[in-house]
Amino acid sequence: MVRTAVVLVSGGLDSATILAVAKSQGFKCYGISFDYGQRHRAELDAAHRVAGALGAVEHRVMSIDLAAFGGSALTDLSIAVPEGVPDPGVVADEIPVTYVPARNTVFLSLALAWAEVLGARDIFIGVNAVDYSGYPDCRPEFVAAFEKLANLATRAGVEGEPFSIHTPLIDLSKADIIREGHRLGVDYGMTVSCYQPTDDGAACGRCDSCRLRAEGFVAADVVDPTRYQRS
Amino acid sequence: MVRTAVVLVSGGLDSATILAVAKSQGFKCYGISFDYGQRHRAELDAAHRVAGALGAVEHRVMSIDLAAFGGSALTDLSIAVPEGVPDPGVVADEIPVTYVPARNTVFLSLALAWAEVLGARDIFIGVNAVDYSGYPDCRPEFVAAFEKLANLATRAGVEGEPFSIHTPLIDLSKADIIREGHRLGVDYGMTVSCYQPTDDGAACGRCDSCRLRAEGFVAADVVDPTRYQRS
Repeated sequence: MVRTAVVLVSGGLDSATILAVAKSQGFKCYGISFDYGQRHRAELDAAHRVAGALGAVEHRVMSIDLAAFGGSALTDLSIAVPEGVPDPGVVADEIPVTYVPARNTVFLSLALAWAEVLGARDIFIGVNAVDYSGYPDCRPEFVAAFEKLANLATRAGVEGEPFSIHTPLIDLSKADIIREGHRLGVDYGMTVSCYQPTDDGAACGRCDSCRLRAEGFVAADVVDPTRYQRS
Repeated sequence: MVRTAVVLVSGGLDSATILAVAKSQGFKCYGISFDYGQRHRAELDAAHRVAGALGAVEHRVMSIDLAAFGGSALTDLSIAVPEGVPDPGVVADEIPVTYVPARNTVFLSLALAWAEVLGARDIFIGVNAVDYSGYPDCRPEFVAAFEKLANLATRAGVEGEPFSIHTPLIDLSKADIIREGHRLGVDYGMTVSCYQPTDDGAACGRCDSCRLRAEGFVAADVVDPTRYQRS
């Protein structure tokens, strides 16, 4: 029997990799992305390309206006995206301004709603606790708590067919992730990780996300296909 | 110090009561409602009236297209709303077709996002485990799991100021709820509980929700101000 999974696809490097992983494990994949008032549309365009290229059966974009709440540099234009280069390997003690309040809780909740309707019991999310940038909702304990919630919140949970939240990247370094995706044939040139790309998806090369990504390609010894903005 | 709370306001009898309860406990209340593709707009109109009448500082309607997923009689026009009168006092063994997949998980997630931005640590939701109609996401164990999740998912939780999910109605019968709201001066005439009201909010008198509500007014010995459709 073919198992069905809902895969959160952001258009970035990590979620492209989990889609390839889910596919390689034999899942029939439904991709879901979120238009949540992020500063740019380039990542949604990338998500659509990635879902198609990696064989998702369907790709949906759900709109949720998290920008109406504000509180993050990723959705609030009055808060600047941080630049500069912290010491390599140092993960910030403080939660950065790019944290979007409760974002992964909201995203997983909507993925859960769709999964229940589809009859899927597996949800893939590309969270990562190594290069996790200090976001509380990327930690293993958060994911475990959500899985428990999912099995109390739904008809599926109550009727005894539990949900699994899959986080195949949780313990991998960025280099490990890139190696795994490379092995599975992911074309990272179609992904966008930058917090402030141009409309056509060229990366700034300066934000935290660009920095982690570039270091990952170097460490993985894989050619970096990222398109950077001309400076 | 005045404490701030986010209150989920649906336009129905229960959530009007919790808004009155939160206000009576001294909270500065922010009301949030959801336009989730429900069959009718009358309950959102009612939510707006209720929030204003009961002194919410602000009222927001968030749009989320749960109807795109389908799977419920409340959002999918191809599934009929059940009518008829089950034996009084009998709560269904099966989860009814009016269950909307993961609805309360999605709603609480969005309330959590807003609460974090507002600096609120208290969220009120009108779930009820007595007359709960068989929805898995109205049970105390669901609420406890969500509270735990909230404190792992957010900056607030990580930084040691925990969230509380308040469910002041959880153990009350419909009659108890009506007595409490009546004591606090709630005008239930402005609320809409019906699953299939007219555009101006008149109730069908036949669906499960209408039946529970009408029985509640009788049991509470409070005059029922509900406007019913002429048949």
